[in-house]
Amino acid sequence: MNITELTGLTGDTICAISTPTGRGGIAVIRVSGPQALDIVQQRWQGKPLASMDSHTVHLGHMIDSDGETLDQVVLTVYRAPNSFTGEDVVELACHGSTWIQQQVVQTLIDAGCRHATAGEFTRRAFANGRMDLSQAEAVADVIEAQSRAAHHVAMNQMRGRYSDELKGLREKLLHFTALIELELDFSEEDVTFADRSEVTALAREIHTLIGRLADSYRDGNAIRNGMPVAIVGQTNAGKSTLLNALLRDDRALVSNIHGTTRDTIEDTVIMSGTLFRFIDTAGIRQSRDAVERMGIERTWQAIDKANIVLWVVDVTSADTSMADDILTHCEGKVLIAVLNKTDLDDDVAARSELNDLLPEGTPVVAISAKCEADIEALRNLIVESATLPEVASDAVIVTNTRHYQALVRARDAISRAIDGLESGLSGDLLDQDIRECLHWLGEITGEITTDNILGEIFSHFCVGK
Amino acid sequence: MNITELTGLTGDTICAISTPTGRGGIAVIRVSGPQALDIVQQRWQGKPLASMDSHTVHLGHMIDSDGETLDQVVLTVYRAPNSFTGEDVVELACHGSTWIQQQVVQTLIDAGCRHATAGEFTRRAFANGRMDLSQAEAVADVIEAQSRAAHHVAMNQMRGRYSDELKGLREKLLHFTALIELELDFSEEDVTFADRSEVTALAREIHTLIGRLADSYRDGNAIRNGMPVAIVGQTNAGKSTLLNALLRDDRALVSNIHGTTRDTIEDTVIMSGTLFRFIDTAGIRQSRDAVERMGIERTWQAIDKANIVLWVVDVTSADTSMADDILTHCEGKVLIAVLNKTDLDDDVAARSELNDLLPEGTPVVAISAKCEADIEALRNLIVESATLPEVASDAVIVTNTRHYQALVRARDAISRAIDGLESGLSGDLLDQDIRECLHWLGEITGEITTDNILGEIFSHFCVGK
Repeated sequence: MNITELTGLTGDTICAISTPTGRGGIAVIRVSGPQALDIVQQRWQGKPLASMDSHTVHLGHMIDSDGETLDQVVLTVYRAPNSFTGEDVVELACHGSTWIQQQVVQTLIDAGCRHATAGEFTRRAFANGRMDLSQAEAVADVIEAQSRAAHHVAMNQMRGRYSDELKGLREKLLHFTALIELELDFSEEDVTFADRSEVTALAREIHTLIGRLADSYRDGNAIRNGMPVAIVGQTNAGKSTLLNALLRDDRALVSNIHGTTRDTIEDTVIMSGTLFRFIDTAGIRQSRDAVERMGIERTWQAIDKANIVLWVVDVTSADTSMADDILTHCEGKVLIAVLNKTDLDDDVAARSELNDLLPEGTPVVAISAKCEADIEALRNLIVESATLPEVASDAVIVTNTRHYQALVRARDAISRAIDGLESGLSGDLLDQDIRECLHWLGEITGEITTDNILGEIFSHFCVGK
Repeated sequence: MNITELTGLTGDTICAISTPTGRGGIAVIRVSGPQALDIVQQRWQGKPLASMDSHTVHLGHMIDSDGETLDQVVLTVYRAPNSFTGEDVVELACHGSTWIQQQVVQTLIDAGCRHATAGEFTRRAFANGRMDLSQAEAVADVIEAQSRAAHHVAMNQMRGRYSDELKGLREKLLHFTALIELELDFSEEDVTFADRSEVTALAREIHTLIGRLADSYRDGNAIRNGMPVAIVGQTNAGKSTLLNALLRDDRALVSNIHGTTRDTIEDTVIMSGTLFRFIDTAGIRQSRDAVERMGIERTWQAIDKANIVLWVVDVTSADTSMADDILTHCEGKVLIAVLNKTDLDDDVAARSELNDLLPEGTPVVAISAKCEADIEALRNLIVESATLPEVASDAVIVTNTRHYQALVRARDAISRAIDGLESGLSGDLLDQDIRECLHWLGEITGEITTDNILGEIFSHFCVGK
């Protein structure tokens, strides 16, 4: 099955409003497909489209099926293959009235266009080889990006740095295969290369490279979806109040996380240019109640996924009975101890008791979440603790869960190959592992894909892109 | 004072997002001014702008002041004077992330642009003679238009049909002046033209043409702001309930009227493609209360301004004591009698009584506003009664209150000139009236204007247009 069939291309011509929804000075309607010029020509009064050079701009009028003028528009022609989609593309910049936008789309549909589905322009760009799948996915990430770091990572991916890295890996793997197959060719003579060291070194290099990409997902996920900060502590320590206090000042910038299951309460906020994802958890205490124990189990999972943990202690009770469990789960994380409810009690005794429990150097902040006292100090501490790597101009960081899962599988396959090399496995079995590794990398770039995967990916796009 | 000074042009270079606010596939940022190419060049990686032909499109990257890539953009160059504003213009189509849009604008401002004020691009187009003031105003109307008719009228105005008509009037007036001045040149010999008939015929023709334009405002206002429909009747006849029932089905299409004083409750709705403005009024009854009498006075005024009047009669009381007053005010209007509260009472007797009062042929509809019964029948009747003129392709209809007021004053001036001609007024006094008439027409097209007028007009534009 070739890629055109897989991507569901039907060879028809599509149109959609590509600019944001609503009224503005101008709006852009994009038309793409083999009939783009012919269809627009039917509704165009101005210089004939057939006579226009690619990448030129022309003033004229769009008319409806009755010949009534709809609007004065600026028309841009892009001739295949030098367009975003790789097909003939016409872009119509009309006045940004919602009425005009609708009418222009309608007249194009009347003339033979089909309304584009979500992400269909980008899907065509992928199908026509204008970009690989990871680049196509990056288009959506670029549009979604809310912070400098998220934007930077998405731009690098869209510009093909990630694809180049994967291409490099693929070439190394093919070289590996070639070496293995050379061995197979001589297998009848029952010869194995006396020294498998070249092959093993190459396998290890590939393993390291894939591993580095897979490991970058932890940062990539923090950049794209927000640095995860778990708020944990005893029940009634004031965790939810703290969450609200942390979000309040920046409420305008708060957005819900789309598509995540909310078994814990999460919200994102940008502080000092970094996106944070705060996760409010169930209170931790010894419990025989099955349901409550499940909630506590999820709290441990939240800590495991977090980069930063805020351990909230009620200064009036100073109950630290679960301290051992919490500290065990926090190993390798940034831990910040938060003494809450300073409005109710002096915190001297509690602070001293807590300091004895905490690993040396763990910061302790005393606040009143309810009165929103000293929240700013806590916020600053969180921002300082958020040690996202500097995203260098050429850094390749994996942000996409689909890619991460494929990379983990690719790494598993190459690990098996290395084990096989070390245990003297035969070349044809090694070859299988390498082919599996190639398969998973190919899924990322879209060389190997299914219609289901493509449908899932592009359904998250906006229409018009 | 020349027009450039009046329009507040400072010769600087402005930029703004021209597409609707929010996230989408693409967004367009417009840059206009003498430094447009130089400033964009500082933040552009791609083919040098200086080497680009006007009206050509180029792919490249925008960078920030640190040289970091902000986005891949499609850049279009328009060289002065062949641009919307008449200045050098660069349009940057970037990915439609709000973050990118903000960053691209910011990097342009860092490089020397100023953020455009509302309507500043159109104001520059006017200042540079790319369009007259009535055309500039039509740009905003085109963007605001919600219905086919409103769009059509605004388009005609933007395309200059109205300007052409005004130009024709101006030429006739100048010809008139020439004839008068010819008379003045011979005035020392105490000669008046024996036959002033040519001059008088011309004045009458001008009067007719201006009058036709001024009269078109009634339709124009209905098209632009909605066909006014007054809902009147006794207190407690169910007028407000009827208003809600009429609006409910189309609530999604309802918009508030901006900038109108709401001494009556008004709301607009599009029914069968026509924009209606429903005006709920104070109940009418004999009253000695001063405040209530003021409310009733406003009801009469609402009827005077309406094209259609819905007279709501409570079927349970069938009180028609104010019928004479209502019918007097409704002369020349489309009147529809509405028997309300059919859920409470059979309407046979009331209908018969009402029929006796009403002018022959007046439609009567029995409804229950509360139960929303038979509202559809009433709605159909309203739509059928809305006899807006067919807006022919070349029709010039005045929709703008400012223009209407200027036309009324111009008509007054030409009326005085006609009176003067008939009473043998001297040429120099006639000349004053003609010059005043020219003045008012010049205010419409912007040949005569003040900074206050321009500020007022363009402040209603969106930024980026």
